[in-house]
Amino acid sequence: MTEASARLERLCIDTIRALAIDMVQNANSGHPGLPLGAAPVGYLLFARTLKHNPANPRWPDRDRFVLSAGHGSALLYSLLHLTGYDLPLDELKRFRQWGSETPGHPEFGDTPGVEVTTGPLGQGLAASVGMAIAERHLAARFNRPRHAVVDHRTYVLAGDGDLMEGVAHEAASLAGHLRLGRLVCFYDSNHISLAGATALAFTDDVKRVFEGYGWHVQSVQDGNDLAALARATDAAKAAADRPSLVVIRSEIGYASPKQGTFGVHGSPLGVEQVKATKRALGYPSEEPFFLPEQAVTCLRGAVSRGKAAEADWRSRFEAYKRDHPDLAAEFERVMRGELPAGWDADIPAFSASDKPIATRAAGGRVESAIAARVPELVGGSADLNPSTDTAIKGAGDFESPEFSPPDRQGAVGGEWSYAGRNLHYGVREHAMAAISSGLALHAGVIPFAATFFTFSDYMRPAIRLAALMRLHVVYVFTHDSIGLGEDGPTHQPVEQAAALRAIPRLTVIRPADANETAGAWRVAMTHRDGPVALVLTRQALPVLAVKGDVAHGGYVLADGEGRPDVLLIATGSEVSLALEARAILAERGLRARVVSLPSWSLFDAQPREYRDSVLPPDVLARVAIEAGVPLGWERYVGPAGAVVGIENRFGASAPLKVVMEHYGFTAANVAQRAIEVVEGLAARLAALGLRKA
Amino acid sequence: MTEASARLERLCIDTIRALAIDMVQNANSGHPGLPLGAAPVGYLLFARTLKHNPANPRWPDRDRFVLSAGHGSALLYSLLHLTGYDLPLDELKRFRQWGSETPGHPEFGDTPGVEVTTGPLGQGLAASVGMAIAERHLAARFNRPRHAVVDHRTYVLAGDGDLMEGVAHEAASLAGHLRLGRLVCFYDSNHISLAGATALAFTDDVKRVFEGYGWHVQSVQDGNDLAALARATDAAKAAADRPSLVVIRSEIGYASPKQGTFGVHGSPLGVEQVKATKRALGYPSEEPFFLPEQAVTCLRGAVSRGKAAEADWRSRFEAYKRDHPDLAAEFERVMRGELPAGWDADIPAFSASDKPIATRAAGGRVESAIAARVPELVGGSADLNPSTDTAIKGAGDFESPEFSPPDRQGAVGGEWSYAGRNLHYGVREHAMAAISSGLALHAGVIPFAATFFTFSDYMRPAIRLAALMRLHVVYVFTHDSIGLGEDGPTHQPVEQAAALRAIPRLTVIRPADANETAGAWRVAMTHRDGPVALVLTRQALPVLAVKGDVAHGGYVLADGEGRPDVLLIATGSEVSLALEARAILAERGLRARVVSLPSWSLFDAQPREYRDSVLPPDVLARVAIEAGVPLGWERYVGPAGAVVGIENRFGASAPLKVVMEHYGFTAANVAQRAIEVVEGLAARLAALGLRKA
Repeated sequence: MTEASARLERLCIDTIRALAIDMVQNANSGHPGLPLGAAPVGYLLFARTLKHNPANPRWPDRDRFVLSAGHGSALLYSLLHLTGYDLPLDELKRFRQWGSETPGHPEFGDTPGVEVTTGPLGQGLAASVGMAIAERHLAARFNRPRHAVVDHRTYVLAGDGDLMEGVAHEAASLAGHLRLGRLVCFYDSNHISLAGATALAFTDDVKRVFEGYGWHVQSVQDGNDLAALARATDAAKAAADRPSLVVIRSEIGYASPKQGTFGVHGSPLGVEQVKATKRALGYPSEEPFFLPEQAVTCLRGAVSRGKAAEADWRSRFEAYKRDHPDLAAEFERVMRGELPAGWDADIPAFSASDKPIATRAAGGRVESAIAARVPELVGGSADLNPSTDTAIKGAGDFESPEFSPPDRQGAVGGEWSYAGRNLHYGVREHAMAAISSGLALHAGVIPFAATFFTFSDYMRPAIRLAALMRLHVVYVFTHDSIGLGEDGPTHQPVEQAAALRAIPRLTVIRPADANETAGAWRVAMTHRDGPVALVLTRQALPVLAVKGDVAHGGYVLADGEGRPDVLLIATGSEVSLALEARAILAERGLRARVVSLPSWSLFDAQPREYRDSVLPPDVLARVAIEAGVPLGWERYVGPAGAVVGIENRFGASAPLKVVMEHYGFTAANVAQRAIEVVEGLAARLAALGLRKA
Repeated sequence: MTEASARLERLCIDTIRALAIDMVQNANSGHPGLPLGAAPVGYLLFARTLKHNPANPRWPDRDRFVLSAGHGSALLYSLLHLTGYDLPLDELKRFRQWGSETPGHPEFGDTPGVEVTTGPLGQGLAASVGMAIAERHLAARFNRPRHAVVDHRTYVLAGDGDLMEGVAHEAASLAGHLRLGRLVCFYDSNHISLAGATALAFTDDVKRVFEGYGWHVQSVQDGNDLAALARATDAAKAAADRPSLVVIRSEIGYASPKQGTFGVHGSPLGVEQVKATKRALGYPSEEPFFLPEQAVTCLRGAVSRGKAAEADWRSRFEAYKRDHPDLAAEFERVMRGELPAGWDADIPAFSASDKPIATRAAGGRVESAIAARVPELVGGSADLNPSTDTAIKGAGDFESPEFSPPDRQGAVGGEWSYAGRNLHYGVREHAMAAISSGLALHAGVIPFAATFFTFSDYMRPAIRLAALMRLHVVYVFTHDSIGLGEDGPTHQPVEQAAALRAIPRLTVIRPADANETAGAWRVAMTHRDGPVALVLTRQALPVLAVKGDVAHGGYVLADGEGRPDVLLIATGSEVSLALEARAILAERGLRARVVSLPSWSLFDAQPREYRDSVLPPDVLARVAIEAGVPLGWERYVGPAGAVVGIENRFGASAPLKVVMEHYGFTAANVAQRAIEVVEGLAARLAALGLRKA
């Protein structure tokens, strides 16, 4: 390399730095420390390493880049703008402002080139493992001799915080196990975190830990040594049999007066310090947002290189299409996220004369029927395949073909390779959720993730991000209430339904029987505005006489002539209980309508007319029945209603019928509560100063 | 060792095994696999290693034992019964039955000798780190030359699942950093997890990983080799400068026909296989619950040894008391969990004439005032000290005195040792929560744990367990709504308040100003039926004219003459907004009452009379204002009310005032909504077929 070109590279890097700190200063909010320290590796990636086309950020075979240290967003926006993505300088000047394309942390969907929403630490690194899995899976499924149409890498930039989070360790351990050689993680080790020296809390021998996970690990002693970074990157790419970690010793807030201090992590430098930083860098101007033309021209070279790279791929894809027209059409279909024609043709219908069946078991049958026609449905459980009933039989185990364990107990069968559609997540619920997001973000697959409902708590940070990103992910949560029995309160979810209903854009469905479960899976496959959580029982439930209307979220399941005296509103396993209570009430001369309400959010999204037809506003005697906390049920039972739920306590260890009985989930108790509500209605209204019109 | 004594030991171990599988078989539910495989190490611990007194499971200086692999509860109950804890055989025969002392997973409080509730994997291991921290801290605080009154160890039995969970890795990394030499973890590596061969998903080089965390690691190749286990235990105890991991290669379901298969993990063996197992062991009888007298006598030896050990400690404690009477009294006080007299004497009172102050900052001042008088208050944040305002200034950093980092930026100051009261958790929210539980379980300290409110999601599984165990833990959650501004939706909690309110026995308090924050801390220090979560703002809030009544959960903050036309009910930062709206409504001739409702659960626990006095049932025009999802607010606003909340969406990145305005959190909008509610009341009631009485 000539001295001139080295100088130009240095100028490019300083331009990235200057632009990033100008953004932060202009917003008077944000994180200047990471961009100053990590600009060289950012440059190396975006200008020299990444196979990407700034003119088409959705090109299927692009390399993915994940900024796991999402607080360094200014670095990413700086790189995106300078390498020619459709992110104008004016948007950078609107960093962290209302409606801009440059929010405080990278937000998927808001900004061209942002592959994933990050900020909550560890999540990006875990999602990147999902992207790398998707790449290997689609390569195994679609590539053919002389036709490598899926052939890209996933790069991550992570910080100290990412490396401390458990979800990152779960994901790293699994990535090592799966030998994901296409995954390269740069660890910006700047020895400073938000609250001080990283060493106050974190003194891992990171190299040793990641080698223990099966990774290829290198160190670069000086984060400004571009040649060393480039050599490490080449070696990482060459280590095809293992994911790679490159530990980069960098200086937080490099060249600023606050270099190496935690004060530079998350606060603007101040106008004078920004200038001082530019002077220390030898930057050609102290003017805010000054961009040297030479550097801009050099960095924008990414556009022509990117166009050429995509054009090359497109011509290779055309050749593939000629040789494998069906496969090519299939590839285009899955990448568009379209379901195949007839995807739901084999979904079983269950009959009221069938013997009772747990909704987890019904879910397993439905999932199998869909999976047989939807090859892009892939997923697995957190070491609970026999319990969640989610394994896709014979569809192969997603494992490294190079790996042959001494014992394959629990393997699903079929191919043992990256073509396998069954992922063995191990007891790593959190990473499972984050990896599922990465799978969905990559595109080409529809991921599902299964565990016991109570352990949805472990997945919550990743579920939230999936909802924020509106991703197509299906969560299968089984063992959904105190109905699981003996395992006791640690395993009995009582508050999880309420807690998940609180997450915006997450569709929670708790089906009442096998047919509602089929309906729930239909929603899960077709819903396009966020993830769907299916909440299923361990215990057998009768198949209802009516085929439930899950798509509307709620419907009238059983009714009589005339205006009902009382509404019994229930979800899941408590719906059949409501039906039994209805029979008791009929003997007492009371007309009860049973409403099944498997999904609050779907129901709430219906027109008022429909909702009022199901829950007539003037029927104020209402009882909700759900084996969980009553939180939120007031919306449906109103001021004079009651909730048969679980309040201020957890579950208990005992056989399911005993627990259910002790907690009041019997038809007799439900009927009794309904009678009390009906008889107490006038008094309850009078207490509110009201009477019937 | 003589052949006879070796034979007796073997019989003891087989008795432990037989009793455990009999329990599982009798319940026809449970996990026989781990007890059969891990009985030898269980024997070694309970019969030879643990310093414990079965006659007094609360002896302060006992060694703690944590069964992190909680599904192996039958092993623990077997050990507790056989070594003489007050756990009768009849209770073992009621394994997993309603109201028994032997629930499906170990439940703290249900069973003498059970130190912690476990089952959700990884949690026990993480909690054990908290116990080990508490031991070192109390030793540093109370021990004096020639007086080691705090001098015990923490032992853990963990399984494959524990070692896969991220929370365990977070905790292990921190334990290594802190050089907790008193912590010994036995890893029952049986190569089988619930769903199959562990190797399907988990091929870590565990030794390497834990060495990378700074642990002392040993392997025992045969889990039945008692001599090797004992040697490893001795070596682990001798490695005083590091926590120890002993990897034990064991056989799941040892001696049963299903040995080494995943079928034996979580299902009863069946009557015939139980018999076959006993035959294979050479057990003297196939009768259920047969206990050889010789073995029972041998195992019950733990009682006399335990009594002697405690008596020895008590006599040493008496000597300590003579030499250090004040310290001894203080030790007894903190171990009883009693607050010192005058603990709250310095809590500041804030005045309405003070300038606006963020509740996080007010919380910091209150916490400092309490901490100065309550030396057992210890805790820290997940790398957010400067932001959560929770560091106890000058109270020292809890760090290994042997560890001297190159850079102490961010250290709180004061002593750098195990006497330090400030814990640096790093970016490990989940472990922070589980460790806090361990601190509380150990007794002698009152732990607090701080992070941004949105990251409470990471802590949720551990918070749930703390609530289940009714532990005294204080969570300090700052940056509590979209009011944090520019960091955007990933950092803006909109659903966390609702989601935490769903957890039984967790007291959530979102104070409206500095004085309510002081009231919230009073509750946090004195509440004894579960953890308390304080939800605090990043932004400054005016100090209200009224000193709020947090203890009752809600109260009338502003009212006028006569019956109010409308109730404005708010929490936290939205209370001052309600006051502003009230002024606008007054100009429009409407009497609005403002109710501050910082804690739903505390309010709901008040007598109906009090609640009705705050929220008069006949005032149906009600508006709730909270910068979060409306879930659950219907309970307070009733059938004709409205919620100014955040529905079906997340937050947005922009300066706080801009975000608040766009989301409708302005006095003008609140007033407008109130007017609509008042004016629409009759129509809304008519739609319900109602009118005023």
